[in-house]
Amino acid sequence: MRTPPSLLSLTIDLALHNLSNISDLSPVPDHILLDLFLRTLRAGKLTEKVLKLFMATGKDEVLSLIEALNIQHIVIPVLPTTNIKDAEVDIVIGALHSDLTAFLNEWKPVFSRFHLIIVKDPDLLEELQIPEGFNLDVYTKSDIDQVAGSSTSILFSGYSCRYFGYLISRKKYIISVDDDCIPARDANGVLVDIVAQHITNLATPATPFFFNTLYDPYRKGADFVRGYPFSMRSGVECGLSCGLWLNLADYDAPTQALKPEQKNSRYVDAVLTVPAGALMPVSGINMAFNRELVGPALLPALRLAGEGKLRWETVEDIWSGMCVKVICDHLGLGVKSGLPYVWRKERGNAIESLKKEWEGVKLMEEVVPFFQSIQLQRSATTAEDCVVEMAKTVKEQLGQTDPMFARAAEAMVEWVKLWKAVQSS
Amino acid sequence: MRTPPSLLSLTIDLALHNLSNISDLSPVPDHILLDLFLRTLRAGKLTEKVLKLFMATGKDEVLSLIEALNIQHIVIPVLPTTNIKDAEVDIVIGALHSDLTAFLNEWKPVFSRFHLIIVKDPDLLEELQIPEGFNLDVYTKSDIDQVAGSSTSILFSGYSCRYFGYLISRKKYIISVDDDCIPARDANGVLVDIVAQHITNLATPATPFFFNTLYDPYRKGADFVRGYPFSMRSGVECGLSCGLWLNLADYDAPTQALKPEQKNSRYVDAVLTVPAGALMPVSGINMAFNRELVGPALLPALRLAGEGKLRWETVEDIWSGMCVKVICDHLGLGVKSGLPYVWRKERGNAIESLKKEWEGVKLMEEVVPFFQSIQLQRSATTAEDCVVEMAKTVKEQLGQTDPMFARAAEAMVEWVKLWKAVQSS
Repeated sequence: MRTPPSLLSLTIDLALHNLSNISDLSPVPDHILLDLFLRTLRAGKLTEKVLKLFMATGKDEVLSLIEALNIQHIVIPVLPTTNIKDAEVDIVIGALHSDLTAFLNEWKPVFSRFHLIIVKDPDLLEELQIPEGFNLDVYTKSDIDQVAGSSTSILFSGYSCRYFGYLISRKKYIISVDDDCIPARDANGVLVDIVAQHITNLATPATPFFFNTLYDPYRKGADFVRGYPFSMRSGVECGLSCGLWLNLADYDAPTQALKPEQKNSRYVDAVLTVPAGALMPVSGINMAFNRELVGPALLPALRLAGEGKLRWETVEDIWSGMCVKVICDHLGLGVKSGLPYVWRKERGNAIESLKKEWEGVKLMEEVVPFFQSIQLQRSATTAEDCVVEMAKTVKEQLGQTDPMFARAAEAMVEWVKLWKAVQSS
Repeated sequence: MRTPPSLLSLTIDLALHNLSNISDLSPVPDHILLDLFLRTLRAGKLTEKVLKLFMATGKDEVLSLIEALNIQHIVIPVLPTTNIKDAEVDIVIGALHSDLTAFLNEWKPVFSRFHLIIVKDPDLLEELQIPEGFNLDVYTKSDIDQVAGSSTSILFSGYSCRYFGYLISRKKYIISVDDDCIPARDANGVLVDIVAQHITNLATPATPFFFNTLYDPYRKGADFVRGYPFSMRSGVECGLSCGLWLNLADYDAPTQALKPEQKNSRYVDAVLTVPAGALMPVSGINMAFNRELVGPALLPALRLAGEGKLRWETVEDIWSGMCVKVICDHLGLGVKSGLPYVWRKERGNAIESLKKEWEGVKLMEEVVPFFQSIQLQRSATTAEDCVVEMAKTVKEQLGQTDPMFARAAEAMVEWVKLWKAVQSS
């Protein structure tokens, strides 16, 4: 059987992606139309114009495939061409130690291209020591007092100093790392670029409404598993990216005290979207967020009476993380967890911390069921709205049980006011 | 300051774990009581008797720690001493190909200790070829007809033949693998023992009510992350363990057709509990379950009109998986996903499958929102109850849209009847 000339040239045009030459697909016989369609799609050449040509054939097979694949949206995850400009990123470091020389030099290969915001713990008396070679701004107690001085309920001391950096940043993306972490290496010994990985997590879609068993389908080499509805594959925007820790993991003081030898040595090469409705312990050690989407929800609200300068003596990040997760679920945004890892160096004596303070451990028993039960109103359509509404519920439902919660509710309301004031200034 | 003799001997007894010598802890000063308590706990020597001694001191620090750690339950995950007898396990293989020689020989190092149930696809005409050296029973069309002959709505052909194996097994745990899979190797080149890993997944607790960012806390070297409520750490029983695939992943035909070169080469060294409320595409290729807990929910119900003998031409496992997940969520059981991997060999032409059949892809658009909306009654307290109730809802809500769903509902009701009859026989 000879192929008619018009079809031959058509096929060649399609194969060579000379799609502008094509104005009519009707000469193509049914049995090869689907094949041509798939080839065009696979080559990433299915433009709107070409799609219309295929639809104009009126052929059932093609029309149903277009419908099934929900082709007006993103059909198949494509490799993220994360076209983020370096200027869209702020790296925020809360300085709990005065000498940042070793810390910053370790991070130089990763951080030097970006703008850094360093916020000095207002309790820290010594001068900061910062090496050359970075584009950075340092903020100290006097800056904090000047901007937030009028607030009495928001405290920026200790780990909470970094929230001042979130407040004054004007960038779309914030990346935040504790100053006792250095870059990790992946299973092949390659230095982990936490900025690139966090930005990839934030700039590619999240899939909170159906769990993909092969983890983030938007990673190179990954995809959606059979049975994943096509209409859900375009996903939603990602608000928060939670990284992990090699060496010393983020355990609480009792766990660390009971298992002093336990180190995290497993490099799990995965990122996943934590499903909608599921809460999680967000850690402030190594995380990133889209400030435009969820910035106001990252807030220093719950402060323990005896809060210390060791991670297991704080819960501000856990509280703030539950706020963000609930808000992301409400607003239809995603939260990812997994890569990138940092290498966390040993610090502190867990048994000493246990003797001093572990009320945070007990508080979780009330805090988690509370956040699991929160239902935000439809009228809350921004992160600011959501925080204000949550503050009200915190005050009503938890405020009676412990004055710490009443203070947290107050801080949340104050924070939104401060956030709005700083953004509009 | 000299330590009084009674305290000295007490401390030595505690340090040496001579706990039976101790009848009174009151001589121990406050400031070392907590330290002794933690040392005892860390050594795994906190028996009920010793716990009572510590509680009898009435010391605030110790009492609050006991309360915070919720010590009457499991406090800290201990390495699974999965004491499963080989005789509690059935490995079920649906034979879609007559020559199982290569398949079984590849699996010999893993399977030879266990009892195998091989169910021959009733459509398969050739005699099965099975190598020596296995403890196995083979079931064919005549066995199926004898046991389930009266049912007209349950079909055991194709991939569904394995469900006959689930039905006649008397074991607590079932492991099921497609006959085009061979053992994978982990990142260190070690052969993956899927039986050991699936059994570990099923025999250790699952944590569906709060997501642990360091994955399954019950794995060696892992733990609960700071902020994870202690009262939730004992977890729940695990009903289903979903393994993954190296080389050829479980994609649908359109994805495979569009990305013919895509292979899964990423070995993600993790197991996690899929949070309660989140649905997922459960694949029948490599999975295991606790038959006593969820057996009746693994059922061959949704059959495509043009169902084929290639994975992407079926959705029975996806449907059944949603049933199991909804039931696990309702009954307070867990579902884990991740390890173990199998190596999946290439088979079939996706473009041919696409031309022939991809209605399964479209059905998901209705099926997923349906399962997401199901609310089971409190009165449904067993997997059987839940399946019957779900069948009713399927018939009412989906039965009108496509006769395929009405048939699925019928098959679900029939299946529970058959299950009960076989179990009681």
